[in-house]
Amino acid sequence: MNSIKYSKLVVFLLLVATSTYAGPPDREDGYRLWLKYDLINDAGQRDAYARSAQFIVVNGNNPVLKAAADELQIGLQGLLGKSIPIIANAGSRTGGIVLAVGNGPTASNQELNAEGYQISSRSNNIVINGKTESGVLYGAFGLLRQLQTRQPLSTISLTSNPKVRYRMLNHWDNTNGTIERGYAGGTLWKWFELPERLDPRYRDYARANASLGINGTVVNNVNASARFLTGEYIQKIAALAKVFRPYGIRVYLSIYFPAPKTIGGLKTADPLDPEVRKWWADKAKEIYALIPDFGGFLVKANSEGEPGPQDYGRNHADGANMLADALKPYDGIVLWRAFVYKADPKADRFKAAYEEFGDLDGKFDKKVIVQVKNGPIDFQPREPFSPLFGKMPKTPLAMEFQITQEYLGFATHMVYEAPIFKECLETDTYAKGKNSTVARVVDGSLHGYAITAMAGVANTGSDRNWTGHPMAQANWYAYGRLAWDNTLSAEAIANEWIKMTLTNEPQAVKRIADLMLRSREIYVNYNTPLGLSRPWSGVHFAPEPWQNKSSRPDWTAIYYHRADSVGLGFDRTSTGSNALAQYSPEVQQRWNNAETCPLPYLLWFHHVPWTKKLATGRTLWDELCTRFYTGADSVGWMQQQWAQVKNNIDPETYADVAARLETQHKEAIWWRDAWVLYLQEYARQPIPAPYKKPKRTLDEVKQLVDIYLLR
Amino acid sequence: MNSIKYSKLVVFLLLVATSTYAGPPDREDGYRLWLKYDLINDAGQRDAYARSAQFIVVNGNNPVLKAAADELQIGLQGLLGKSIPIIANAGSRTGGIVLAVGNGPTASNQELNAEGYQISSRSNNIVINGKTESGVLYGAFGLLRQLQTRQPLSTISLTSNPKVRYRMLNHWDNTNGTIERGYAGGTLWKWFELPERLDPRYRDYARANASLGINGTVVNNVNASARFLTGEYIQKIAALAKVFRPYGIRVYLSIYFPAPKTIGGLKTADPLDPEVRKWWADKAKEIYALIPDFGGFLVKANSEGEPGPQDYGRNHADGANMLADALKPYDGIVLWRAFVYKADPKADRFKAAYEEFGDLDGKFDKKVIVQVKNGPIDFQPREPFSPLFGKMPKTPLAMEFQITQEYLGFATHMVYEAPIFKECLETDTYAKGKNSTVARVVDGSLHGYAITAMAGVANTGSDRNWTGHPMAQANWYAYGRLAWDNTLSAEAIANEWIKMTLTNEPQAVKRIADLMLRSREIYVNYNTPLGLSRPWSGVHFAPEPWQNKSSRPDWTAIYYHRADSVGLGFDRTSTGSNALAQYSPEVQQRWNNAETCPLPYLLWFHHVPWTKKLATGRTLWDELCTRFYTGADSVGWMQQQWAQVKNNIDPETYADVAARLETQHKEAIWWRDAWVLYLQEYARQPIPAPYKKPKRTLDEVKQLVDIYLLR
Repeated sequence: MNSIKYSKLVVFLLLVATSTYAGPPDREDGYRLWLKYDLINDAGQRDAYARSAQFIVVNGNNPVLKAAADELQIGLQGLLGKSIPIIANAGSRTGGIVLAVGNGPTASNQELNAEGYQISSRSNNIVINGKTESGVLYGAFGLLRQLQTRQPLSTISLTSNPKVRYRMLNHWDNTNGTIERGYAGGTLWKWFELPERLDPRYRDYARANASLGINGTVVNNVNASARFLTGEYIQKIAALAKVFRPYGIRVYLSIYFPAPKTIGGLKTADPLDPEVRKWWADKAKEIYALIPDFGGFLVKANSEGEPGPQDYGRNHADGANMLADALKPYDGIVLWRAFVYKADPKADRFKAAYEEFGDLDGKFDKKVIVQVKNGPIDFQPREPFSPLFGKMPKTPLAMEFQITQEYLGFATHMVYEAPIFKECLETDTYAKGKNSTVARVVDGSLHGYAITAMAGVANTGSDRNWTGHPMAQANWYAYGRLAWDNTLSAEAIANEWIKMTLTNEPQAVKRIADLMLRSREIYVNYNTPLGLSRPWSGVHFAPEPWQNKSSRPDWTAIYYHRADSVGLGFDRTSTGSNALAQYSPEVQQRWNNAETCPLPYLLWFHHVPWTKKLATGRTLWDELCTRFYTGADSVGWMQQQWAQVKNNIDPETYADVAARLETQHKEAIWWRDAWVLYLQEYARQPIPAPYKKPKRTLDEVKQLVDIYLLR
Repeated sequence: MNSIKYSKLVVFLLLVATSTYAGPPDREDGYRLWLKYDLINDAGQRDAYARSAQFIVVNGNNPVLKAAADELQIGLQGLLGKSIPIIANAGSRTGGIVLAVGNGPTASNQELNAEGYQISSRSNNIVINGKTESGVLYGAFGLLRQLQTRQPLSTISLTSNPKVRYRMLNHWDNTNGTIERGYAGGTLWKWFELPERLDPRYRDYARANASLGINGTVVNNVNASARFLTGEYIQKIAALAKVFRPYGIRVYLSIYFPAPKTIGGLKTADPLDPEVRKWWADKAKEIYALIPDFGGFLVKANSEGEPGPQDYGRNHADGANMLADALKPYDGIVLWRAFVYKADPKADRFKAAYEEFGDLDGKFDKKVIVQVKNGPIDFQPREPFSPLFGKMPKTPLAMEFQITQEYLGFATHMVYEAPIFKECLETDTYAKGKNSTVARVVDGSLHGYAITAMAGVANTGSDRNWTGHPMAQANWYAYGRLAWDNTLSAEAIANEWIKMTLTNEPQAVKRIADLMLRSREIYVNYNTPLGLSRPWSGVHFAPEPWQNKSSRPDWTAIYYHRADSVGLGFDRTSTGSNALAQYSPEVQQRWNNAETCPLPYLLWFHHVPWTKKLATGRTLWDELCTRFYTGADSVGWMQQQWAQVKNNIDPETYADVAARLETQHKEAIWWRDAWVLYLQEYARQPIPAPYKKPKRTLDEVKQLVDIYLLR
């Protein structure tokens, strides 16, 4: 066995003594995510797989290929219980797995893009082919996924290409170890320990991302510290980049726009100032000297108090193009965020991004991509798509989704997000007629963008299971899979994830998938039905539809729902803010008329009288109550569904999710009570039968909420 | 085997595939702390132990005894590789372990206090005897420790009693998941998940503490949120208390003094106001209804901006006694902190606690204990003992040590703290003549205190290994052991911890112990030699001896070291602040004279000319340089020592500590350079031979430090 230097068989005997205590390492703790590779129970299936996986062929010492081969070896060891040798050449042997780069043994290379892969059966070997090493790495994970989900290997023939080029995670992590909007512990990045100490977790983070095809990570908060641009910190980031590199992941930084002043000692950060431009060019040079594959910069500027080019009378394009210039000698890009809005009480925040960016179309450097949140406000449980999509044909637009559950119940609500992402991606912008979906804007097929990207605001943290809620792992997974291929269905992704993570038992898979697929609508029902939005103050956890005081009007709750004695909702038609005018005529037509506007978007665009009869046959008030009550009740249904899969999944994960569902149920009722009691003061109508009046008063609900506003 | 329901044998085959990737669960990650229970390699020794541990006898269903028996079973399973049955009655069997409460089979019960234990060989069984179930639990851990450190069992005869009654951890944890002065990730307490979800970690936390004899935990920051006193949060705390209870651990809360206003809706929090007193009495009733063994309240009041009784013209005793009154019907206590100082530029912060508390001796309720930090300032690397010790004979004083390394290099410096704790405990206050040590004040033997307590500010966090730096686990361990028995030596504790955690190989144990025992002095040498203190601004990480601006004078660095053209140090003799007058005459005599004052305390009490010749034969300036340089160089020695134990400990821990030592070395040189370059501007003397001038300028050092002051 010429692979003895790579492989080592270690057998641990772990003896568990009592029925009441399961300590690590035998206690399932979710750390392994969907890369569990637990032994396949069915010996026949195991043997069948083993016949096609007798060895792994990899030629040369390329670190990405080595990572691919290592992962196959780890995975097969777990799944099949066998140590599979890695060899340099198959010779005449058959029944193995061959990793092949470039003009490999398959004929159909032309079907592949730079990072795509092809898995096929050829000369009685399984060949994983890619034009680049990264393609092969993704193929290796793709092959393992086939085994994890119990697909046959003998006739395998798979071609898969990523639809967008930059598939990124954005970490809103701070220097002090906290994460803005993180609900799974603190940051993964141990800045005080870097660059010398490398947490073993960094590599497992990279493996998980590579398994999805994620190829970039912005390690720090968009509300950025200039600290990350100092030589001291660039060394730390270089150490992370080194761990990530064999997994095809490039590191990016969020930058603090006035850094030339803060740490450069200059008197200005004006993007047209020659000294400022030189400072950034020098800084890029310094970074690339240590991180040759550095990805580029992500920028939040002139947004929510962050400084930017407008402080110097310049516009977003001036700022972005200056940074693009600094990156000119390198293979790096600028991701410039379009999340902007001014503190104007008369304005509609919905319109702000389009107003600032619409006229800049075509003004950005070729290395710039404008990163747009899926909706016009801020990651609400349901939002219409941002009007920018389809309206900037000359400017590549990146999609920014939020994986972390800032507005989705933190770590105690089960909300499977693929339906949120898919709903947005599949919406037709009509930018170039029918079938101009958001997905086609983002993947570049509509406007022929030179750069394409998707970004997900990460939900990872230092919690042992990475994401707090065990089911939130599925959101990381789903985001990554959709960044790779936006045509995958929410259901298909759920099925994959469940099989890889929880169980392969068909009935249980079906039940859990059902639970997941309904979870978002259930959340919307008790949280923000019919197009309500943002019933929060700063904490984004507890219901506060009554919240009416803030330093800015658009940081109150009443700004969004506009409840009054007449009705509820934000009039964004021509009689109101006319935000709808920012969309294509076909979209306007769909949403402009309160009679025909789909109910999920109704209150986003219309101020609707309480007594107005909706398509459901109920008045607005009755429909709202119905949704709040059935939404909260549905969490009870979720608990029942979950209880039925108890015997199909490990006891730790079962108990964890069951406990969180209990919390969710309690909190869903809290949300329901808050909304109906508050809105009732405007609607002045009784709770319709068969629903019972909340047992508590509005004041009592408010007192409960106030707890979460204390320091 | 009648214990089959308790015991289950599960064998896991973990197959590790590659030499480059060790994933969980086979990767050592430090989670198990000193309770590793790894299989004893020497089969002969294993067999010898097994002969004395063939069964475990426990009678009845008491949960604390069950925890003790379970722990023995877990431990023996790991150490001996055998499943040891738990049985209800030994009958005529011999060769087992018998847990006995109260008037058990041993004759010498009178030697035991409430939580003490006795382990003895009797009728060919090993009997663990305690007056209470907790005593037996501590004895079970004590017996396991014997095996873990490879002591013979056959002739065992051990009696151990805790010297103080309340042995506590103080967690400075916030509601948002952060820890004030925490360097090992975020909080352990998942407030948003409680009370429904119980992190399995809570139980392992309790096990670790019980193994040391820690019997109380204050779960929240002394800069307290009123949130913890709401019904919503009391339920969460009750859920934690339920997990801790079988391990003899009671839960305490830090309280926000104005809570009756904040959450009670009252107009005042005046401790003499009847409504306020009723509010606290009702609150205590509400808490005890859910947590019958609730421990009591910890209070930071009129300190660093926290409100307190002085806001209403009352004193500390008024505030503390009001809370004691509320706890009167219950077995709870009030821990009132003496960490107070006013923002008076002319005052000496050193004197503040004594000035506020000295006159209150005898004024406190019997349920109150005043909790005093070991030194008069704030957990510096070296401080003289607080003048309060020995000066409040009628008021029980608790010792507050800091385990978390706020001023000891966070998570990248190896500083074994037992020598810090011991140095303080062994200092003679001369309060009642010779041998009136701080230890004897704290354990009550000097003044006959009715209550005795020790508190350690915890260094635990959500990092997988609990404490960030693997060697910082030893500080948690050492604190717990000293809280139990302040006569243990730093060396004995180090040896125990190393054997239980890292290795039993004698040479390696010796080498690591040597490293640990010298580590504090090395740190002091490069950080704050000769009695320097507090060269920090808010971050408490980077050197800032030049820091001279703050909202308060006593929050600058220059306030403490008082460098000028003449010399260095704070004159606290009668020619200066006269803080020394707060000590007993014998102590004053020792420290009052710059000629005879021990060098470690010199600059705490004297402003010493740069050219003054010290007992070492060097001038102050030369001695300072010598210490800074040898201190930084000694970290190189630490690295060499560590390299020599590489083959004796697991590779993950080895690599982790080695990397942190590398960081420490870099930072130690940074500290050295900062101090010598800064002080040189006052001393105006060259760096003495053989030491070389730092390669960087003071400005360059300052720029490096400035990075850590950016957001």
